[in-house]
Amino acid sequence: MPTYRLDLAYEGTGFHGFAAQEGLRTVQGELEAALERVFRQPVKVVAAGRTDKGVHARGQVVSFGAGGEVDPGRVERALSSLLGPEIAARSCAVVDDSFSARFSAKWRSYRYQVLNSRAPDPLVHRLTWHMEDRLDVVAMDRAAAHFVGTHDFASFCRRAEGRGTERTVLSAAWSENGDLKLFDIRAVAFCHQMVRSITGFCVDAGRGRADPESVPAVLAARDRGAGRPMAPAAGLILWEVGYE
Amino acid sequence: MPTYRLDLAYEGTGFHGFAAQEGLRTVQGELEAALERVFRQPVKVVAAGRTDKGVHARGQVVSFGAGGEVDPGRVERALSSLLGPEIAARSCAVVDDSFSARFSAKWRSYRYQVLNSRAPDPLVHRLTWHMEDRLDVVAMDRAAAHFVGTHDFASFCRRAEGRGTERTVLSAAWSENGDLKLFDIRAVAFCHQMVRSITGFCVDAGRGRADPESVPAVLAARDRGAGRPMAPAAGLILWEVGYE
Repeated sequence: MPTYRLDLAYEGTGFHGFAAQEGLRTVQGELEAALERVFRQPVKVVAAGRTDKGVHARGQVVSFGAGGEVDPGRVERALSSLLGPEIAARSCAVVDDSFSARFSAKWRSYRYQVLNSRAPDPLVHRLTWHMEDRLDVVAMDRAAAHFVGTHDFASFCRRAEGRGTERTVLSAAWSENGDLKLFDIRAVAFCHQMVRSITGFCVDAGRGRADPESVPAVLAARDRGAGRPMAPAAGLILWEVGYE
Repeated sequence: MPTYRLDLAYEGTGFHGFAAQEGLRTVQGELEAALERVFRQPVKVVAAGRTDKGVHARGQVVSFGAGGEVDPGRVERALSSLLGPEIAARSCAVVDDSFSARFSAKWRSYRYQVLNSRAPDPLVHRLTWHMEDRLDVVAMDRAAAHFVGTHDFASFCRRAEGRGTERTVLSAAWSENGDLKLFDIRAVAFCHQMVRSITGFCVDAGRGRADPESVPAVLAARDRGAGRPMAPAAGLILWEVGYE
């Protein structure tokens, strides 16, 4: 039974997140239903990142095994036709059986988009967090730099039972493109709600409500309450997943 | 009764165009209902550009007269709260009584966005026309240049009764930003479906299906059938309106 790697993009607005949930419209649910039509058999996928409700993806990766001989190019076209325009198959390939979208991943990166303008912008409202208060990107970037490295991120994670909260952040930086303030963060893996919690902290630093230099102390507190309000889902995009 | 100028942005996907139509959800219908709540009296607006179903606006301008003394800043905030996130008031001001968003306008500009990539992109599908065929932007720009000037645009307009089809195009050019091919066109005024018809022609030129140098002959034909299939509404944005 060949193993497939499928690269996906989706606009998360209309989905209750990636992970399948009984009775709710999810990316995994829609995807597996479409794959079942293409392969004429039930298909279960494994994803590199289980994005939350309302979160988007530019470079989600999933893997699955499926019998039959379906040409990857046909899978790609059939999926885009069955799932578009909210979900698109960017590419599909038969890969080595040892490949797992989740366990073979070396790192994940996310982008968070803040629209920093007086008026909201209907043309990007689905993909941004609108913030009227003028943001100091230098302060946000100083805060971001403190997250790089291996830390216990308990102050910035919703704790999942039986899993630790130590993670390794490889890079984290803010940049700007006009009114758009962009946060790019890359880690070996993230714990739950970590990017939105870190973004929330950085934005508070950018509004003068938090001290960028307090990040080490907040990390050391290992207490969810020491963090800051989470940034909303709409601004978050699973950007890229790295493999060997 | 003071005259107000209101600058608006909207994502047109969910609207049957700008102009009010009985029983249909339109931008004008939603806007006038909200203004009636703010001013506690019926309000009729006049717009710089009557965008079609599914067409967006970044810089639509409307004007209206309304009694009472409502602070423009309050109008702006009330509208964004009543109409968001699909419609946003970018600014509101009391202006000279002689101002008409429609008749005082010196020019209008539109932007058309084509996503030229193998796979569709769910993150921009509402604002772009996805085209797989590789586009030659130089050929598209050569075609565009022929539209500049005063011409009879009958080959590129849906004819409206009692109105001529002579228009003056001030500038028209294609540019690219990665996979996005952008068409910016500015004219004193446009006739109905003119931008999408011109875009359709340019894209055909970019795919090698039309000769960019044939534009003068197609204009001279003054025949709608001589044009090309219209580009879809999703890629079109009313970009800016110029006043004295």
